[in-house]
Amino acid sequence: MPAKKQFNGSADEAEAAFYAALARADLDALMALWADDEEIVCIHPGAPRLIGHAAIRTSFETIFERGSVQIHPTQLHATHTMATAVHSVIEQVTKTSDAMPEVHILATNVYLKTPHGWRITMHHASVAAGKAPLDLFKASVLH
Amino acid sequence: MPAKKQFNGSADEAEAAFYAALARADLDALMALWADDEEIVCIHPGAPRLIGHAAIRTSFETIFERGSVQIHPTQLHATHTMATAVHSVIEQVTKTSDAMPEVHILATNVYLKTPHGWRITMHHASVAAGKAPLDLFKASVLH
Repeated sequence: MPAKKQFNGSADEAEAAFYAALARADLDALMALWADDEEIVCIHPGAPRLIGHAAIRTSFETIFERGSVQIHPTQLHATHTMATAVHSVIEQVTKTSDAMPEVHILATNVYLKTPHGWRITMHHASVAAGKAPLDLFKASVLH
Repeated sequence: MPAKKQFNGSADEAEAAFYAALARADLDALMALWADDEEIVCIHPGAPRLIGHAAIRTSFETIFERGSVQIHPTQLHATHTMATAVHSVIEQVTKTSDAMPEVHILATNVYLKTPHGWRITMHHASVAAGKAPLDLFKASVLH
């Protein structure tokens, strides 16, 4: 039986549901958040581009074999139109070792307004050198 | 005198103008392609996120001090709505040495429809391991 798809009334809700599904390693809930479109794109840090539900599902299945992923999106900068929301966040990943290199993860998340609520059409995450900088524009937590 | 801003009737035109401006190292033309919005975001491969016109302009000024940048965007996958276009491309960079590591560059480019034509609101480029894969979905040139 397919997973019941969550209805997200805003891009912010879809984004919260995305990181919550990662934190629970809930593959069905995670995949139900993506737009019903084979042009959806997912780029994991340092990895080649994945296109379409099957490839993206397989990648998260592989990730979840090692456990859940605790990511806290911070320092949101967003551009919204009626039907699209473009979010840029710094992904604060729970540190598992003091030996981790000094890098941070940047993600671009794009959401589309569909008849079934806001859905993900693009997730592009990549590694940036250095510690996460302080957001000079918005130093406090958003939303 | 500010640069005359190009009117782009489509996101594809804006994208072509972006890579053409890089190839000419034309800073004014390049910056005129971005939306008049301080929330614009630019991420160069491996580098921290830049927000707003001043920071983005400075970064390209520094890049152009070493010369122009010859990039050919390939394997476009796009999602369009009335007012937004989300482009995922593989950036084919002119090889300057056989010693270059086996990587490729992925870019997410987001365009907004504005009263002045289509403008860039986000450029997120990052390095992916391995040679650029063949596009199994669309092996031929798009457009």
